Amino acid sequence: MTDTRADGRTADQLRPITIERGWSAQAEGSALISFGNTKVLCTASFTNGVPRWLVGKGKGWVTAEYAMLPRSTNERMDRESVKGRVGGRTHEISRLVGRSLRAIIDTKALGENTIVIDCDVLQADGGTRTAAITGAYVALADAVAWGREQGFIGKNAKALIDTVSAVSVGIIDGVPLLDLAYTEDVRAETDMNVVVTGRGLFVEVQGTAEGAPFDRRELDALLDLALAGNAELARIQAEALGA
Amino acid sequence: MTDTRADGRTADQLRPITIERGWSAQAEGSALISFGNTKVLCTASFTNGVPRWLVGKGKGWVTAEYAMLPRSTNERMDRESVKGRVGGRTHEISRLVGRSLRAIIDTKALGENTIVIDCDVLQADGGTRTAAITGAYVALADAVAWGREQGFIGKNAKALIDTVSAVSVGIIDGVPLLDLAYTEDVRAETDMNVVVTGRGLFVEVQGTAEGAPFDRRELDALLDLALAGNAELARIQAEALGA
Amino acid sequence: MTDTRADGRTADQLRPITIERGWSAQAEGSALISFGNTKVLCTASFTNGVPRWLVGKGKGWVTAEYAMLPRSTNERMDRESVKGRVGGRTHEISRLVGRSLRAIIDTKALGENTIVIDCDVLQADGGTRTAAITGAYVALADAVAWGREQGFIGKNAKALIDTVSAVSVGIIDGVPLLDLAYTEDVRAETDMNVVVTGRGLFVEVQGTAEGAPFDRRELDALLDLALAGNAELARIQAEALGA
Amino acid sequence: MTDTRADGRTADQLRPITIERGWSAQAEGSALISFGNTKVLCTASFTNGVPRWLVGKGKGWVTAEYAMLPRSTNERMDRESVKGRVGGRTHEISRLVGRSLRAIIDTKALGENTIVIDCDVLQADGGTRTAAITGAYVALADAVAWGREQGFIGKNAKALIDTVSAVSVGIIDGVPLLDLAYTEDVRAETDMNVVVTGRGLFVEVQGTAEGAPFDRRELDALLDLALAGNAELARIQAEALGA
Amino acid sequence: MTDTRADGRTADQLRPITIERGWSAQAEGSALISFGNTKVLCTASFTNGVPRWLVGKGKGWVTAEYAMLPRSTNERMDRESVKGRVGGRTHEISRLVGRSLRAIIDTKALGENTIVIDCDVLQADGGTRTAAITGAYVALADAVAWGREQGFIGKNAKALIDTVSAVSVGIIDGVPLLDLAYTEDVRAETDMNVVVTGRGLFVEVQGTAEGAPFDRRELDALLDLALAGNAELARIQAEALGA
Amino acid sequence: MTDTRADGRTADQLRPITIERGWSAQAEGSALISFGNTKVLCTASFTNGVPRWLVGKGKGWVTAEYAMLPRSTNERMDRESVKGRVGGRTHEISRLVGRSLRAIIDTKALGENTIVIDCDVLQADGGTRTAAITGAYVALADAVAWGREQGFIGKNAKALIDTVSAVSVGIIDGVPLLDLAYTEDVRAETDMNVVVTGRGLFVEVQGTAEGAPFDRRELDALLDLALAGNAELARIQAEALGA
Repeated sequence: MTDTRADGRTADQLRPITIERGWSAQAEGSALISFGNTKVLCTASFTNGVPRWLVGKGKGWVTAEYAMLPRSTNERMDRESVKGRVGGRTHEISRLVGRSLRAIIDTKALGENTIVIDCDVLQADGGTRTAAITGAYVALADAVAWGREQGFIGKNAKALIDTVSAVSVGIIDGVPLLDLAYTEDVRAETDMNVVVTGRGLFVEVQGTAEGAPFDRRELDALLDLALAGNAELARIQAEALGA
Repeated sequence: MTDTRADGRTADQLRPITIERGWSAQAEGSALISFGNTKVLCTASFTNGVPRWLVGKGKGWVTAEYAMLPRSTNERMDRESVKGRVGGRTHEISRLVGRSLRAIIDTKALGENTIVIDCDVLQADGGTRTAAITGAYVALADAVAWGREQGFIGKNAKALIDTVSAVSVGIIDGVPLLDLAYTEDVRAETDMNVVVTGRGLFVEVQGTAEGAPFDRRELDALLDLALAGNAELARIQAEALGA
Repeated sequence: MTDTRADGRTADQLRPITIERGWSAQAEGSALISFGNTKVLCTASFTNGVPRWLVGKGKGWVTAEYAMLPRSTNERMDRESVKGRVGGRTHEISRLVGRSLRAIIDTKALGENTIVIDCDVLQADGGTRTAAITGAYVALADAVAWGREQGFIGKNAKALIDTVSAVSVGIIDGVPLLDLAYTEDVRAETDMNVVVTGRGLFVEVQGTAEGAPFDRRELDALLDLALAGNAELARIQAEALGA
Repeated sequence: MTDTRADGRTADQLRPITIERGWSAQAEGSALISFGNTKVLCTASFTNGVPRWLVGKGKGWVTAEYAMLPRSTNERMDRESVKGRVGGRTHEISRLVGRSLRAIIDTKALGENTIVIDCDVLQADGGTRTAAITGAYVALADAVAWGREQGFIGKNAKALIDTVSAVSVGIIDGVPLLDLAYTEDVRAETDMNVVVTGRGLFVEVQGTAEGAPFDRRELDALLDLALAGNAELARIQAEALGA
Repeated sequence: MTDTRADGRTADQLRPITIERGWSAQAEGSALISFGNTKVLCTASFTNGVPRWLVGKGKGWVTAEYAMLPRSTNERMDRESVKGRVGGRTHEISRLVGRSLRAIIDTKALGENTIVIDCDVLQADGGTRTAAITGAYVALADAVAWGREQGFIGKNAKALIDTVSAVSVGIIDGVPLLDLAYTEDVRAETDMNVVVTGRGLFVEVQGTAEGAPFDRRELDALLDLALAGNAELARIQAEALGA
Repeated sequence: MTDTRADGRTADQLRPITIERGWSAQAEGSALISFGNTKVLCTASFTNGVPRWLVGKGKGWVTAEYAMLPRSTNERMDRESVKGRVGGRTHEISRLVGRSLRAIIDTKALGENTIVIDCDVLQADGGTRTAAITGAYVALADAVAWGREQGFIGKNAKALIDTVSAVSVGIIDGVPLLDLAYTEDVRAETDMNVVVTGRGLFVEVQGTAEGAPFDRRELDALLDLALAGNAELARIQAEALGA
């Protein structure tokens, strides 16, 4: 495989990943994560108690909201608050982030506590949802630790049963590539976001033929790339968390 | 594989599928499709012309909207019109149906015409989005035929480059099952919606771990089931279209 | 009176009326009603309990919502959920259907139970609001029967004190006509919707001069037609309910 | 008929009606109308030109909006602007006022001009919609006169083909009453709003059984009352307009 | 200083101010206030009890809402209820009126009662927010008196600790002017609204350079004018309240 | 004056101010500004062309939007996009920022170009609106420079006629303080935001008595502090811009 990518990466190489853990002075957990030029601020807000529909069930709740700053993109977008409605893409990604985190949370062990994760894209250059999930995990882990220190979560309760990260993969000119930057994303025939736990199990597989539909062999190649990329992300998360 | 499903189906068996083509007296294409007790009314509205942002590019546009009647479900849901906003799930599925149809449309061959597909769930028993996509294709095909008869689409323009259908698959108690009914859907550990063209290529693969994350082997088994199920759906679509 | 109507009806003749009682597998009462090509799906959702403002008053509540599918009409309409607001006409008809049903309900006999009637127009060819009321009654009657079987309504409580139906009447070229189809509706100088109980009493009289204002004699002729039409509808409802 | 009404009126007597024509210093036509304690400010805004969908058809447009101040009623109501949506009753009445005015406008004679009538209820004591229609006519007449003076309407164009007014009637304890005050309105078994032209023709008849349904004889008695009441209102309008 | 103002006033002269106290038959306090052609209807709605977040704290709550009728201005504005959202200017002024009133209320003495002030501009000719505050005080004072008579406020509780009024000042062609009319307002280089208590203390000072920024000396001149104007307004309020 | 402030500042001392100019890789101008722990990301989006209502007038347009991330505060706030409406405080501040910037822009010299400034609060510790204005100026200056380099603004057109910054001042326990941190802000009896140009002229003066009303002497002391603070901010802006 030759170095054909615009930024000099090999096909199976992540962009430079950085995680500024504890960026926020106020949130119970936070991380400013970068996948290259994509920067997402993830904060975790811990509340003792659960929404009304969960009260008395001995279980906690984890949810997420994703949004983009209006000028995080090349062209300024109108604010969803000004438009008065949350767009379909925003909804879709918020739900994806929430599901991904709930997959590695034991809500019984969490107890009747709520953690809301906010993922705000400060700068977008492709892969914002995968960066959001990867950073959200770090914020979540710190919020869980905070809840334990405060005595809201039992000392030995294992609320986090695994770690979770996500990466995009895609096919350009027939070549499967890892972690697409924006200019690659718009050219990709197929685009897939893969959410994987630290143990290498799938949480979400979302593949979409943007151009031509794809066959089984291509799907397999993309899954291979995504598993390897997520393994690397898990390592970086562990490092950030000082584990 | 033994008959363990509540409705007596084998693991790899679709529910009874029926397609009432041309249900609507007014739409340019329409189909009332049933996947067992799931019933979705799909209508295709053909308009000569395209949205402003596409004018003069020599290309057409296909989009879709999905919605559920308030009492299509066991418990009545509030109307989204009354709530004043479209929910995240509705947005997500509308976008999925639209992308699925665009994957098999050659928008240049379609010419400067717009087709809007409405998929309204009259009764829901699991698999509403897959029934919607499968029925939408039939409505779309008839709308394209109508556009050709009216002279809006060129006589030899091949606007439809393939067919498309969708089916859900999932794992219950470790067993991969095809076309989940609602009672199965809520029990599934993993739930996947797979959109496939008539030629057997993937358009969308959306797998979600509702319970435990899944491994590569399980993913492969689900994809096998889905490809077989979609092949059967393509056959039923062809029959409905008298092809 | 000669056969001058486009569909061959006499001036005082209803379109073919059909009622598919129990169309929905899930609602406590339902009917798919047709007035010619106008098709409305009416479902009744029964809930034990009442809205907060009625609790403890020993009375029940019946309300209704009316809506049209986007392509129930000749030209596709935008969805009200997407527009983010319910239109004036929709509001107006929802309120009319609700009032019409409450006129024949004894809310004390109903007890602290709520019935919500949804009337969704699947296909529109004039008279959608009158078909909605007529079908809604059938769904309501079955929901009341269901509530009685479940023990939520007293065995001898006479919750339904009468039946109710509705029909449109109008004047075209000076001739009063019963049950206008869409093409007649748009030509009518005067358009009136008349809601009548099985005993022949008025619940609602809504007459509007679309063209020239009308005089007392014309009003009387329209009311005569409407009473006769509603008597026929009451007979058809009784038949559908096996009374 | 004895003086049984709380305010000493006979059954067929209007409340004191006053019309302050030209109340607004800015609108092209205006009237502050009182039906007893009900006070409605009606303004007419004249614009040369029509909405886009009417351009080039040589016809004008008249429309109306009705609203209540939050403390026009006994209990303060939330503002619809704050709730973010216009309620069903507001919609319904706005539409009624608009239709009533259009019934006596010759839109061709009006030419490509638009008149928007705003009816804002400053104080409500029953009959706000009928006061609104009656006052709106006065504002409309002055706006038409203004348009003629400005040369926007042809000198000899007869844009107003009749006058229009409205009054409520109802049955309390079996007695038909004219022009219900709020305390009467809430007790009425039947409530009817009747919009009539100066020539005594019906524009709208909206009768509703709030309590028991009503029979043909009662309906006739109400219509008699309403015609007489509207004749009196037409006289008062003419006086206000100095006709 | 010469008489250069369009309406013949001197630079330091208010427009004719009138206050119709008790305009509304229904509100617990009300005033129709005029600053020249600017007319604002202020009503105060008294409720025993407080919003949920204040319950049990032994304190009351005063809030305000400001709005303009659509044709209170030269050009008709769309209704905010129809647009589905409250505009920034409306929000801003509602908040200003509320803060101004709370500055002279002792919420402990008010007890657990709520007073909502509605300020609806019937006619606008500049200074609507200052007229609103000045009239709102009169309505508030009467509502407090009403609450005391009803026994909701303690006999000796001094809920009103001062009076409050407001006036605009501005600089046109370098000359500081008091109480700008609309035609002056649009020409002003600097526009300031000053809310002052009866004792001559500042509650709000909101100065804005509409044209050129202003210096300290100009600011001082405007504050002098505003203090004098508010002293005069306090006198007129006292007169209206029969104090 | 003794060091009585929690963070050790003197009464007339700003918090540490930092400006990361050019933080965004995409915006035409940007600055991440900190006033102590308050951090605001300001981006300027330059578009050639103006809104429709300005076309052909030879003038440009500058506007601003302010918003807070949901967890920029101690307690998480709901997103305005999710609530479906922009709150009053947000509206108010967006308008303030826009007016402040327009005060130092010569829109004729800007030509038919539009600059939208987004100020997103990443972390809030008091003074977010003053930090927003101060940072917005830096982003604006760079966007103007960008527009000149691109040839959209004339070479010698002096679009920026001055600089602008803002600071808060307030009175706590009778002592006037500069640049309030959040814990000071909530205790302040009086709170004032003062927007001043580089030449020391006032653009906005917004003083509010949160507790007791204030007198003229206090107002003067606050204005003195604010002028000195803004002079320092102007120096820091110049430094950041390398002037």
